[in-house]
Amino acid sequence: MSDTNQVHGNRLDPWLDSYAARAHGLRASETRSLFAVASRPEVVSLAGGMPNLKDLPLDRLAEATAAMIRADGGRALQYGNGQGLPVLREQITEVMALEGIDADPEDVVITTGSQQAVDIITELFIDAGDVILAEAPTYVGSLSIFSTYQADVQQVPIDADGVIPEALEETIEKLERAGRHIKFYYCLPNFHNPAGVTISEARRPQIVEICRRHHILIVEDNPYGLLGFEGQTYTALKTLAPEDVVYLGSFSKIFAPGYRVGWAVAPPAVREKMKLASEAAILCPSSVGQYSISMYLEQFDWKTQIEDFRTMYKGRRDAMIAALEEYLPNCRWNVPAGGFYVWLNLPDGVDAKEMLPRAVTNLVAYVSGTAFYAGGRAGRDHLRLSFCYPEPADIHEGVRRLSEVVSRDLEILELFGPIPDRPSAGISAPAPDQI
Amino acid sequence: MSDTNQVHGNRLDPWLDSYAARAHGLRASETRSLFAVASRPEVVSLAGGMPNLKDLPLDRLAEATAAMIRADGGRALQYGNGQGLPVLREQITEVMALEGIDADPEDVVITTGSQQAVDIITELFIDAGDVILAEAPTYVGSLSIFSTYQADVQQVPIDADGVIPEALEETIEKLERAGRHIKFYYCLPNFHNPAGVTISEARRPQIVEICRRHHILIVEDNPYGLLGFEGQTYTALKTLAPEDVVYLGSFSKIFAPGYRVGWAVAPPAVREKMKLASEAAILCPSSVGQYSISMYLEQFDWKTQIEDFRTMYKGRRDAMIAALEEYLPNCRWNVPAGGFYVWLNLPDGVDAKEMLPRAVTNLVAYVSGTAFYAGGRAGRDHLRLSFCYPEPADIHEGVRRLSEVVSRDLEILELFGPIPDRPSAGISAPAPDQI
Repeated sequence: MSDTNQVHGNRLDPWLDSYAARAHGLRASETRSLFAVASRPEVVSLAGGMPNLKDLPLDRLAEATAAMIRADGGRALQYGNGQGLPVLREQITEVMALEGIDADPEDVVITTGSQQAVDIITELFIDAGDVILAEAPTYVGSLSIFSTYQADVQQVPIDADGVIPEALEETIEKLERAGRHIKFYYCLPNFHNPAGVTISEARRPQIVEICRRHHILIVEDNPYGLLGFEGQTYTALKTLAPEDVVYLGSFSKIFAPGYRVGWAVAPPAVREKMKLASEAAILCPSSVGQYSISMYLEQFDWKTQIEDFRTMYKGRRDAMIAALEEYLPNCRWNVPAGGFYVWLNLPDGVDAKEMLPRAVTNLVAYVSGTAFYAGGRAGRDHLRLSFCYPEPADIHEGVRRLSEVVSRDLEILELFGPIPDRPSAGISAPAPDQI
Repeated sequence: MSDTNQVHGNRLDPWLDSYAARAHGLRASETRSLFAVASRPEVVSLAGGMPNLKDLPLDRLAEATAAMIRADGGRALQYGNGQGLPVLREQITEVMALEGIDADPEDVVITTGSQQAVDIITELFIDAGDVILAEAPTYVGSLSIFSTYQADVQQVPIDADGVIPEALEETIEKLERAGRHIKFYYCLPNFHNPAGVTISEARRPQIVEICRRHHILIVEDNPYGLLGFEGQTYTALKTLAPEDVVYLGSFSKIFAPGYRVGWAVAPPAVREKMKLASEAAILCPSSVGQYSISMYLEQFDWKTQIEDFRTMYKGRRDAMIAALEEYLPNCRWNVPAGGFYVWLNLPDGVDAKEMLPRAVTNLVAYVSGTAFYAGGRAGRDHLRLSFCYPEPADIHEGVRRLSEVVSRDLEILELFGPIPDRPSAGISAPAPDQI
C-alpha cells in the first residue's frame, strides 16, 4: 500500500472513502460463516432453497446437449439477443399457459435467473428512499436487492390466506398520507418463500383492485407456482390486470437453476426499459443456457418431470410435517400446499437468530426468520425450514436435532428468563445457502 | 387500461411517473432499428464485435460437454457459489499468467461476462454525479452502464500510444480544483475498443503513478490482451499496482461469449463487496457455463486455440488495411497490433452518424464514432470498423461499399457545403451489434 493511500480509507480498505452510498448497506450476512460450517456433510441443512435434481435424466440430457452443440453450437456459443432467444420466449409462453397466463412472446424478457429481473425492476423504479411494499415476511434475496437500491421496504401482514387486503390498503393509505412515493408491491402469491402460504382466490381480485386504485405496480414473483402438490394452480395476478403487473418466472425450480435462466413479462413500455437495462448490465443472457433449456422443452417430457418433482416434494413435505408433529409439538407451523418451505413459529421467548449457532453445533441448519424482514426488524420468533433438498430420513433426523436445541433453549429460558433485546444489525446479503 | 391509470403516466406508458431518475437516461440507440436491417445477410456488417467462432472444434466440445454433464451434472445444473467455481478461479489465474499477472484465486470474482463486472463496480462506487475518467473514445457498453448510474464521464485524449499521461493528470487536476469526486479511471489498455491502440510500456508506470498520487482506483478492462497478432503481451497495470487496480478479464474473445463468463480481480476489500453485490444481483453465475469452461481449459489445447484465433484475426486485419489503402486513401486510420477494430478518421466534413443510413442502404454497416463518447458529444468524424467476424473477401467488399458512400457524401459536401451542427441526442443503450 502506498503512503498516499494511508491518508485515505483504512489499512483494510484503502478505497473505503470512495464507495457509493448504496454500497454501505451491503454487508455479509452474520450467519455466512455459520453456513460454511453448515455445508459440511454431517450437518442436516434445512436452510437451503436448492431444488432436488437427483431425478433429472442426466444421461439423456448429456446426449441432447451434445446434439444441440453439434447442430447449433455456432449460435449457442455466440452473443445473443438482449431480450432473449425468440424460440425460447415462445416456449416460455407455453410454460405460463399451464397457470392460465396468456402472454405475448414479445413481452417476455429473459434474464439471468428471475433474481436479475428483480434487480432490473428495482433499478428502473427505485430512487433512494422510495417505498416498496412486500409481505411480512418476504424473500431474503429480494430484500437484499431492495437494500442495495436504498429502498424503504414496508412489509404488510399475511395470514394463512396470504397477504391481508385490509392491511395492504391501510398501509398504502398511511404511506400516502405521509406523502411517500410507493413504487411497487412485490408479491409472492404462491407457496410463499418463506411463509409457505398462498393467496386465496377470493383475495386476488381484491389485491389487484387496491393496487389499481392507488396506481401501484405489482411485481408478481412466481418461481413455485407449478409445484402445487395436488397439481392445483391459481389465478395469476397478471391475468387479472395485465397492464398493472410485471410477472416473474424461473426455470430454477421446475427444471434446473444451473443455467441461470428466468424471465419477466411486463407491459410494453416497462418491458422495453427492462430490455435496455438488462443489455446494459450483461449484454445478453447466456446463449448456451437458453439453447439448452429450449432443447429441453422441445425434446423432453417436461410436464411429466414437473409432476414427478411435485410428487417428490410432497413426500418431503409430509416427512417434515410428521417429524414436526413427533418432535416439536410445542411449536406452530403451516402445512404448505406446494413449494419448498415450512414457516415455524417457536415457543415464546425462544430466539431463532440467537439459537442458530447452537443448532449448527447440534448438526442441523435453518434460516432465522429475521432474514425475511427488512433490517432484520422482526422474525426472531420464526424460522424457515426447507424440505426440498434432504432425503425424508434426513428431514426426520434434522427436525429431531432441532427439537433438542429448542428444548435446551426452553430450559435455559426457564432458569434465566428471556434474553434482553439486541439492536438490529441491518439488512445484509443472503448467504448462498439461504436462497 | 383503467380509468385511474389515465390520470398517471400517458397512454403509451401508465408507469411513466414511477420510474427512478436513472431510468430516464435509458434510451434505445437511434441506430437500433438500422441494425435490425444491418443483420440481413446481404449487408456486410463491419459493426459488430462478435468473435469469429467458426474454428472452434464443436464436435469435440459436444462430446466433452456430454461427459461433463454425465459426471458433474448434479452440481453443474445446481446453484453455485456466488464468487464462482473454485477450480475455475484457479484456472483463471493460469490464463492471467500468460500476461504476467500473478493473482490469488481468492481474489477472483466470476461474473456474467466482464460486462457484469463493470456494472457491479459502477454500482459500488458511483453516486449520481460522481466522475468516471475514461479514454476518448471508450467502449460503448461501459458508457451505457455509467449512464445508468448517472455518472459524469470525463474522457481523456489518446494518441497512438494510448492515453496521454499529461492529459490524464491535467484532467484530474482540473476536476479536483472544481471539487469533483473522481471515483475511478476506466481504462482499456490493450487493443482498445474502438480505437485499436495500446498503451506503450513507457506510459504504463506513469499512468499508475498519476492515479496513485491522486488516489484514483483504476478499472483495467482487458478482453483482448491475449489477441496480439505477434503473440506480444504488455505489462498489466494490475501488476504495477495490485492494490490500486480492479482487473477485468473475459472468455468471450479467447473462447466463446455464449457462456457469459468473465471475471474480476480486485483488492480484498473491494472483491468482498463485489461478491456481495453480484450475489444480490444474480445469486450466482451460471454453473453450467462455469463447468463447461473449466472442462474446456482442462481438456483442450486452449493456448493453441488462442494462437489460431490470433492468426485468423491478423489475416482479417491485413485484409481490412489492404482494402482501406485501395478504396479509402482520403481517410486516416491506425494499424492495430491486435484485437478487433480499426478507428477510421473520415475526410473533413463527412459525418459518420448522418452517413450511416446511406451506408446501410448501400449494404455495409459500421458504428458511428459518436457511440463511444458520453452523451454522443464527439466522434462524428470517426467510425469503428470491425474486422473480427466477416470473411476477408467480405471485408474487402464492405470497405469498397463504404468508399462509395463516403465518395457520394463528399460530392454532396462539395455541392452544398457542410451540414449544420445538430443537438446531441444523449447517451443510449448500445444496439446488440455494437458490442
